[in-house]
Amino acid sequence: MGFVSAPQLCQRLLLSPSLSSYPNPKPFSFASLRCRSQSNPPSSYSSSAAAASSFTWDEAFALQDPASPSYSVEDPSDLLPYFHKVRLCNRGVEKRWEFQPFVVDRGIAGYIHEGFAEHLRKFGDVFLFHREGSSAGRFGNHIELSPSLVSYEDRTDALAYVVKSLESGLIPGIRNELYPVRASFSGPVLLSLERAAAPYFGIKAYGVHMNGYVEKYGQHYLWIGKRSPEKQTYPGLLDHVVAGGLPHGVSCGENLMKECEEEAYIPRNISHRAIPVGAVSYCDIEGYRFKRDVLFCYDLELPQSFEPINQDGEVESFRLVPVSLVSNIIRRTHFFKPNCSLVIMDFLFRHGYIKPEYSGYLNLLASLRSGDCS
Amino acid sequence: MGFVSAPQLCQRLLLSPSLSSYPNPKPFSFASLRCRSQSNPPSSYSSSAAAASSFTWDEAFALQDPASPSYSVEDPSDLLPYFHKVRLCNRGVEKRWEFQPFVVDRGIAGYIHEGFAEHLRKFGDVFLFHREGSSAGRFGNHIELSPSLVSYEDRTDALAYVVKSLESGLIPGIRNELYPVRASFSGPVLLSLERAAAPYFGIKAYGVHMNGYVEKYGQHYLWIGKRSPEKQTYPGLLDHVVAGGLPHGVSCGENLMKECEEEAYIPRNISHRAIPVGAVSYCDIEGYRFKRDVLFCYDLELPQSFEPINQDGEVESFRLVPVSLVSNIIRRTHFFKPNCSLVIMDFLFRHGYIKPEYSGYLNLLASLRSGDCS
Repeated sequence: MGFVSAPQLCQRLLLSPSLSSYPNPKPFSFASLRCRSQSNPPSSYSSSAAAASSFTWDEAFALQDPASPSYSVEDPSDLLPYFHKVRLCNRGVEKRWEFQPFVVDRGIAGYIHEGFAEHLRKFGDVFLFHREGSSAGRFGNHIELSPSLVSYEDRTDALAYVVKSLESGLIPGIRNELYPVRASFSGPVLLSLERAAAPYFGIKAYGVHMNGYVEKYGQHYLWIGKRSPEKQTYPGLLDHVVAGGLPHGVSCGENLMKECEEEAYIPRNISHRAIPVGAVSYCDIEGYRFKRDVLFCYDLELPQSFEPINQDGEVESFRLVPVSLVSNIIRRTHFFKPNCSLVIMDFLFRHGYIKPEYSGYLNLLASLRSGDCS
Repeated sequence: MGFVSAPQLCQRLLLSPSLSSYPNPKPFSFASLRCRSQSNPPSSYSSSAAAASSFTWDEAFALQDPASPSYSVEDPSDLLPYFHKVRLCNRGVEKRWEFQPFVVDRGIAGYIHEGFAEHLRKFGDVFLFHREGSSAGRFGNHIELSPSLVSYEDRTDALAYVVKSLESGLIPGIRNELYPVRASFSGPVLLSLERAAAPYFGIKAYGVHMNGYVEKYGQHYLWIGKRSPEKQTYPGLLDHVVAGGLPHGVSCGENLMKECEEEAYIPRNISHRAIPVGAVSYCDIEGYRFKRDVLFCYDLELPQSFEPINQDGEVESFRLVPVSLVSNIIRRTHFFKPNCSLVIMDFLFRHGYIKPEYSGYLNLLASLRSGDCS
C-alpha cells in the first residue's frame, strides 16, 4: 500500500479522522482506522430528528449586522470552519470496519453493520453469511442476498418481508416509500427497498440539490428555505430552495423540475434553465446506519422579480440571502441541514468565493466528494 | 482492503486500466496492477515533442461544416470519447509499481523509477536507498534525500549537482528553470529542481489554466490558442488562451494575471475578474518520467470586443470557437494539448454541457481528478 497517497485516501475516501491534521494531513493508514473500530457500541437508530434547532431568520441575519452581538468579522481565508462542516456529513469513519459488504448479484450494493446483521440471521432463505477463508472470495466477510432471488420483484418482496418482520423500533420512521438499490448510478436497479431501511443496508442514495440564485450589484444572493417544524427530519433547519431524493425511473433533470414546482412553485419555463454543475458525496455512519449519498448539484439563476412559494407544506418560509451571509451561517452556526453545506461549498468553489490562495484549498475541494461518488 | 470501493479507487486514484469496463467498472485490485508491472522496459526519455501535429484551423472548423467530409453528427450523451482523453493524460498506470517513493524531510516528495534510481546510486552523499525489512519503515522500499541536507539551499544545490552530473541525454531539454518541490500544495517548499528533471523525480507540479470565454446568443465561445510550431513541447497543438506553470513564491491569481498579459495581452483590469473554479489532476507515466500535475482552473468572461494578442511568441494564433465545436475537437481529434482536455471537460461539467443523464457521468467527473489532487 506504500504507493497510494495516504493523504489522498484520507481526504477522498475516508476524510481525515483528525482535523488537527489540517491543512497538511499526517500520513494515514487503514490499520490505524481498524484499531479504533472497537469502541463505542452503536446506538440502534438515528438521532437525526433530535438535531432539530429552534432559531429565527432574525438570528441568522444578525450575523451580518454590526450592531448585533453575534456579529464578527470573518477571515474568508480560514477554511477550517468548512472542514468542520464536511466532517459533520462524514461522521463515524472510524467505524467503517464494523460493516460488511452487502452483495447482490455478485456486486457490492451496500454495507451492513455486524450488529444489525445478527437480526438478519433468522432469514436464512434471504441472506447468506460468508466468512473469510471459506466462501468469502474477493469480498472478504460479507452478507449476500440469496442468489435464488433472481428477479427485481422477488428481491424487492423478500426485503420488504424482512423489514416488516424485524422487531418493532429497530428501523424507525417507516415511510412506505420505495427506494431503488443499485451498486452505482450507471448500474441496473437490483431491487427496491423501504426508504427508512436504506441506511441499515448501506445503500447508495442519490438526490438533487439546487442553488437558486439571483445576481445583483455584482453579488450572488441565494434563495434559502427554512424547513417546516413538522418535518420528520431536520425540522426547522435551513435548506436549499429546491432539493429532493431521486426516485426510481425518474431522471435527475425531470425530478428537479418536479421538485421546483412542488417545493418552490418555480414554473417549468424557468426551471428548465437549471444547469447541472457536478456532484458531491459523503458517507455518514451513525449506529447501524451507513448513509452513502451522492447529490447532483444544479444552479438556477432566478429572475429578480421571482419569489418562491412552497406548495407541499414542507417549507415554512424562504428568504433571499447574500452569499457572504450564507457562507457565514455555514461557518458559524448549525442552522443548515448538514448536506446543504457541501452543495453550497461547491457553489462557493465554482463561483470563486473560495480561492487557491487559501491554505487547504485542494484538500477542501477533494473533501466535497468524500463518499463513493459513483 | 475489501472495504475500499474498488471502482472508486480505480477511477479516482489510478484510472480504469481498461476502458472496456466503462461505464460500469469491474472490480479492481492493486494486485492485478502489480502483476502487470514487469513488462515493457521504459524508454529513457519523453517523446512529448514527437507528439507534434500538423493541422490547420480550417481542419478544426471543418468538423462543424456539414459540407465537409470530416463532419458527423455527434451524440453528446456518449461520454466514451471523453474517457479516452482522460486516459491519454493518465498513461502508464500499470507501471506505478516500478517507482519508489522519493522521501524528503520524512514526507513523500516524489517517485523515482527503479531504472533511473540506478543512475543515482553513485551520489551516495545525496541519496539513501532503503530496502523493505531494514530501514524502510512506513514507506517500504524508498529513496531518501540525505537528512544531512537540511536547508532549502543545500538540497537545491545537491540536486542541481546531480542533474548536471548525470550522463548526457538522460534528462533531455534542460531549461535552466527552477521548479519548487513540495509534498502537497499546502506544504513547505523543500527545495527547487530543474524543471526538465522534475518528472524524473516524480515531483508534483502545479499550473493555472484559464477558460477565456464569450457568451453570445445563449452559447459559450472559447478563445483557443494554437501553439507556436517552435515550442519545445506540443508544438502546433491547440491550447487554452492562457495557461502556465506555477513558479516558486507566486500565487495562483498573480501568476494568472501575469500569464494573461504575456500570453494574450489581457490587461489586468480585465484579468482580475478571472474566477477560480476548482482544479483537475492527472498522473502520467512514460519511461522514467512520472508526471503528477494539478491544474487550477479559472473562467474569465471576456468582452465581446476583445481579441487576444500573443506577446511572448509562444502562440501562433487565436480563434474564438463555439463550445460545441471545442467539445467535438476534443472528442474526435488529437488537436488539443492533452491536459487542456481535462480543464475543458471540467468547464463542460460546470456549465451544464455534460448532463447526469449521460451514462458514466459520475465516473467521468471523478476521473478529472485521477491524480493526487493535493
